[in-house]
Amino acid sequence: MKRRIASIVAVAAVAAAAVSAQTTTSKKSPGPLTIKEQGSFFVGGENKTITQPGFGPNAPPTSGEITVNQMYVQYQIPMKGEQHVPVVMVHGCCLSSKTWETTPDGRMGWSEYFLRKDRPVYLADQVSRARSGFDPTGFVDVRAGKSTPDKMPNILDATHQVAWTVFRFGPKYGEAFPDEQFPMQAMDELYKQMIPDLNSTLGQAPTATWKQMAALGVKLNGAILMGHSESGFFPEQAALIDPAGIKGNISIEMPCVTNFNASQLATLAKIPTLVMFGDHLGDVTGGPANWAQSFASCNTFVDQLKKAGGDAQMMHLPAMGIKGNSHMLMQDKNSDQLADLVIAWIDRHVEARKAATK
Amino acid sequence: MKRRIASIVAVAAVAAAAVSAQTTTSKKSPGPLTIKEQGSFFVGGENKTITQPGFGPNAPPTSGEITVNQMYVQYQIPMKGEQHVPVVMVHGCCLSSKTWETTPDGRMGWSEYFLRKDRPVYLADQVSRARSGFDPTGFVDVRAGKSTPDKMPNILDATHQVAWTVFRFGPKYGEAFPDEQFPMQAMDELYKQMIPDLNSTLGQAPTATWKQMAALGVKLNGAILMGHSESGFFPEQAALIDPAGIKGNISIEMPCVTNFNASQLATLAKIPTLVMFGDHLGDVTGGPANWAQSFASCNTFVDQLKKAGGDAQMMHLPAMGIKGNSHMLMQDKNSDQLADLVIAWIDRHVEARKAATK
Repeated sequence: MKRRIASIVAVAAVAAAAVSAQTTTSKKSPGPLTIKEQGSFFVGGENKTITQPGFGPNAPPTSGEITVNQMYVQYQIPMKGEQHVPVVMVHGCCLSSKTWETTPDGRMGWSEYFLRKDRPVYLADQVSRARSGFDPTGFVDVRAGKSTPDKMPNILDATHQVAWTVFRFGPKYGEAFPDEQFPMQAMDELYKQMIPDLNSTLGQAPTATWKQMAALGVKLNGAILMGHSESGFFPEQAALIDPAGIKGNISIEMPCVTNFNASQLATLAKIPTLVMFGDHLGDVTGGPANWAQSFASCNTFVDQLKKAGGDAQMMHLPAMGIKGNSHMLMQDKNSDQLADLVIAWIDRHVEARKAATK
Repeated sequence: MKRRIASIVAVAAVAAAAVSAQTTTSKKSPGPLTIKEQGSFFVGGENKTITQPGFGPNAPPTSGEITVNQMYVQYQIPMKGEQHVPVVMVHGCCLSSKTWETTPDGRMGWSEYFLRKDRPVYLADQVSRARSGFDPTGFVDVRAGKSTPDKMPNILDATHQVAWTVFRFGPKYGEAFPDEQFPMQAMDELYKQMIPDLNSTLGQAPTATWKQMAALGVKLNGAILMGHSESGFFPEQAALIDPAGIKGNISIEMPCVTNFNASQLATLAKIPTLVMFGDHLGDVTGGPANWAQSFASCNTFVDQLKKAGGDAQMMHLPAMGIKGNSHMLMQDKNSDQLADLVIAWIDRHVEARKAATK
């Protein structure tokens, strides 16, 4: 175990040197990128019959089907992609797959970084968000007088003030931690990424995302599922629906479920699992998130997986000497370094194991 | 009002390509793709102060700022990109930038096709749609009892039935034209692309998209704006806000405005303009769209531009011997052929002109 941490830290040190060099050259292109294939598709989706206002002021209402619960996925496969397990990245609350693309300060995001490290990358917009769309009937029915406002789904749009504390940019709004790794000068660009979230409020929407994530793993004939924040524990939830296509789970910054039964833990323990947390977990109070409590729950979860025979690891960045990371760590100034840690974990815990069982 | 409804209707197309069909066709890779740079960013966006329910059952409401009216843009620049004018593609009603990506039946979409023809491609999600997000306050206020349901923004979600006729897949739902070019076996995949549309209903949202499109042209130091259906005439509207960055306008299948004044026409006549329409314009009746009327209005508009000294062209595909194209012509089976027509037009009318004035 000590050796493993030492090697992780060594990797981190190398990466840190690379990052500081890169920061100065961030505006320069990293060079040509050759990919084997790219595109987009949907996973899942069901028909739902709706009645909606007619087109035009005097037109009668019309009935028909719409498609709901589909999950939009955008992908790129690098030239050596077949040598690696695909990585599915799923964003958090009030965000979209933009999370993984160009960072607020214009550096390369994790999606392209992983791609340039020869990983096939699949970005999924959660069901009920962004290009996946959402079921509008809960709103349309209220407007048409068929339902009442109190039954209308809630829409969560995190304010700048909420984001500042929940994402741990500093102890309070407008004040940054001295060692903050988030590119604070580009905060306005992060705020633009924040869009209305209906997912946790539209009935079975999160369940639909879990289901489509599991189905995507199967479709890809094996994938690593990565979730962040709101979706941080979605990989585990997906595995409990169908673990067949899930080769690894990566859960970044969220509360963990700690009351799974033995059968559920046995299922999850078969999947190599990485949990990652940044810094300042106990240094922000008064916001809606309780990061110290989330961290504690995930330490418990990791212990439970280990006791069930699983290969589970808690990567708490400050404990590894990496300080100042925010909740949006994939966009932090040291994002390349953190990506390298994740990739190194994949190599050792998912791909080495896959090679060994061949 | 009629125009607004018509343009909404003009929209409805979306894609339902069967994943199974997609899987088999996507096996035929067009070969490696080398790009110079890719990424995403936002154009525009303003702060808005909102009050929303607190987090947790007994938490008091909180006030703060959110960002609204920003436009999400995803781009790829090919190796020879600097030799060509960038192309900005904007989707139609009830759709997202998915419109331009992998077709419902799994073929290459226009975005990658243009890219492989050395064009820098910028895909914009309209303001109030997909990854651009939307202003949720009109809904949140009704739920909180601060406003009434009749004042709530309408959400348009085109049903399969509406899409079938508006997108001209056949004379009536379930019946295809014998020469239909849309990949009908993949209809379900188009339906999955169809997501709730708040754009035409959220007050100034379409205006915001026009504004951001104009700003994007300036940011790119010159671009061709391409719109489809709901956004078909957005390039012209953007040009009337600020023509400085607009090198060409491509308008696909929408009603045209025909009552511009001389000053407006003079502005638009300075920009090479292509208008494109598919087949069966008069062969679908009873739906919310009137394609024959839209076509007539655009013929008038093209004539007005010409009379004002402009370089304007109506490309009516059946008149060129290309039969059976639907409203979703960028996804039709002959989509490559149509892309070639557009690219050839760009070469002759935008780039040759640009070269001549160098």
